Amino acid sequence: MIYICLMALETTGDDFFMKQALREAQAAFEENEVPVGAVVVCNDRIIARAHNLTERLNDVTAHAEMQVITAAADFLGGKYLNQCTLYVSLEPCPMCAAALGWAQIKRVVFGAYDDRKGFTTLQDALLHPKTEVKGGVMGDDSAALLQRFFRERRKKS
Amino acid sequence: MIYICLMALETTGDDFFMKQALREAQAAFEENEVPVGAVVVCNDRIIARAHNLTERLNDVTAHAEMQVITAAADFLGGKYLNQCTLYVSLEPCPMCAAALGWAQIKRVVFGAYDDRKGFTTLQDALLHPKTEVKGGVMGDDSAALLQRFFRERRKKS
Repeated sequence: MIYICLMALETTGDDFFMKQALREAQAAFEENEVPVGAVVVCNDRIIARAHNLTERLNDVTAHAEMQVITAAADFLGGKYLNQCTLYVSLEPCPMCAAALGWAQIKRVVFGAYDDRKGFTTLQDALLHPKTEVKGGVMGDDSAALLQRFFRERRKKS
Repeated sequence: MIYICLMALETTGDDFFMKQALREAQAAFEENEVPVGAVVVCNDRIIARAHNLTERLNDVTAHAEMQVITAAADFLGGKYLNQCTLYVSLEPCPMCAAALGWAQIKRVVFGAYDDRKGFTTLQDALLHPKTEVKGGVMGDDSAALLQRFFRERRKKS
């Protein structure tokens, strides 16, 4: 019985969904994009997944979070994600945090903290006041992938 | 000669381009979208134009500014708009201001101030430090269109 409970946790907990966001980040890495990935979860089900595509789309707005918000709203047929959790491998920037604010997302779980560009470095609150936030989930894995990306990019240049 | 100079001003100045942004806002109004419009100008030429489409696209990220940034970058073939001016009929929200920050836009000219959601109400600076900002250009026209929109919406509901 204990074994079954642990398995259930393993397939629905924050670590499980963050692993899915990290898989998206890995896909970005393989496409020479800054490796950030995201999924949106509603009722323990992934309804949208995306990764950073700023290089391929030649578009500064093509962050993983922006695309996953658009995809999740398209799936739900409604603009608001107030029953959903966003999992993203890197702390959202102010653009993405403000977009999540407009979407009234219920919960944001992020991996690595971004001490330079992360929204928690700001004085102003950009998320909806009811949004719950949890940072640092599998943050080391995300940070390691990002460091590897920038190290390899420096070598190439 | 004076006449010629005035004509030149009329077709290249901030009022001229703001009128184009207001035409986009009017198009949004006619589509039952919150009436906000934007154009991006490079070398006195409009390279992209867009209006708010949050209702039609069912997407909180579909603000006029976000779409015009994407369209302008697509036109230029480069992500950065550091030689361009954005004209937008309403003061950008934090999401759009942060996106304009990523795009390193040279100049932002906006119409009506937004005392509730405008980026200038924040303590944090979201634009690139080099970006020049001018607010209130034809702001009364923009505010009148917005007021008419919300008045008509209240009547319908």
